[in-house]
Amino acid sequence: MARTPIWKSIATTLTDDISSGRYAPSDKLPTEAELASRFGVNRHTVRHALKAMAQENLVHARRGAGVFVAQVPTDYPIGKRVRFHQNLKQAGRLPGKEILHLETRKPDTAEFEALALAATENVHVYEGLSLADGNPIAVFRSVFPAARFPNLPKRLSHLRSVTAALAEYGVADYTRASTRLTARRATAIQALHLRLSESAPVLRTVGVNIDASGTPIEFGTTWFAAERVTLTLTDED
Amino acid sequence: MARTPIWKSIATTLTDDISSGRYAPSDKLPTEAELASRFGVNRHTVRHALKAMAQENLVHARRGAGVFVAQVPTDYPIGKRVRFHQNLKQAGRLPGKEILHLETRKPDTAEFEALALAATENVHVYEGLSLADGNPIAVFRSVFPAARFPNLPKRLSHLRSVTAALAEYGVADYTRASTRLTARRATAIQALHLRLSESAPVLRTVGVNIDASGTPIEFGTTWFAAERVTLTLTDED
Repeated sequence: MARTPIWKSIATTLTDDISSGRYAPSDKLPTEAELASRFGVNRHTVRHALKAMAQENLVHARRGAGVFVAQVPTDYPIGKRVRFHQNLKQAGRLPGKEILHLETRKPDTAEFEALALAATENVHVYEGLSLADGNPIAVFRSVFPAARFPNLPKRLSHLRSVTAALAEYGVADYTRASTRLTARRATAIQALHLRLSESAPVLRTVGVNIDASGTPIEFGTTWFAAERVTLTLTDED
Repeated sequence: MARTPIWKSIATTLTDDISSGRYAPSDKLPTEAELASRFGVNRHTVRHALKAMAQENLVHARRGAGVFVAQVPTDYPIGKRVRFHQNLKQAGRLPGKEILHLETRKPDTAEFEALALAATENVHVYEGLSLADGNPIAVFRSVFPAARFPNLPKRLSHLRSVTAALAEYGVADYTRASTRLTARRATAIQALHLRLSESAPVLRTVGVNIDASGTPIEFGTTWFAAERVTLTLTDED
């Protein structure tokens, strides 16, 4: 925890260069020799900066080919209104969804409580993959009360949008009542879907959506690939 | 992604038992044989449930001694008003701070921009450890404009509270203008401070606090031990 070392300032400057678009995702960075000359330092210091940036998943080295800019993380707003398509379009990304699994079954305890279900009610479960510009950014599981939304799985499989599917049942608007956030290591299956190394960190959000009358309509868990997503929380939420 | 297996329902039930206080932090769980009899399953299924709970850091096995309940994660609200002491007391935890480092130096690019500094201004940097009931839950770095808050490091080292120290400069209230969240693997130093295994997931928040007139007064980064903290985001924020 000493005074900021030079390699750190170089990493910060290069990171800024990436954020500002001077180097775009998947661009090759200048060589170590070129960077050493730009910053007036030796190559060892440049290498140190690049190594730190690689640890932060900002760049990755390809053996023999050089150092490349990683995909810039997608900003994803979390707040009262969580709308996948809208959020991604705002971030300038092409949104996509892939359905992994749809089923109707008995709820577990957490689902039962979160959705305030009656004793014998079933739930619809929608598991899928969220994509930004074709790259997987999250796996999710959304759970809905089956009694209120008969045939929801069929509609979801046609529409691939929760907002559009719920609108067909007269749910014009819904909001996020609460969100809980933590981080975990990716499981083997999550790592596979998200194209992460196993045990890479994932950001997990757990939330309940309610309709205009305050009734819970969706209990959702999302696991974001942390290296590709930054969740943002702003004043307007 | 098949139908909920029995081991999963058992894990959910035991997790609920922990949340509801039936089993308290550091309690020994019943033996595998006892749990097998309670749930009417074989010990293999119980073991599967306990293994899944261990992966989620809810329990840990001590060789030869049994399976114990881990510390229940602290709920930590993130929103417009982030006050460490208040947040922890609300969660029923004893708050604590440990100062790791205090210095005054030139800002790096990110700090310079976040605090909207003038060209030659310095910053005060406060690095420390946040504790809940004596257990480390986060490491943090807070950066303040030095010109506006002369001698802040001295006051922070006496008061150990940012809110109290800023009040001495007439800052009666401040709010969080924006928060950015992601997850990373703990660095070696973070793992040491937070008593985590190296590369365990940490939740990183980056935020700017502003005073009543909208002027940035603090640029803060916090790395939470994900296994000990759940960030919560509620309607009131």
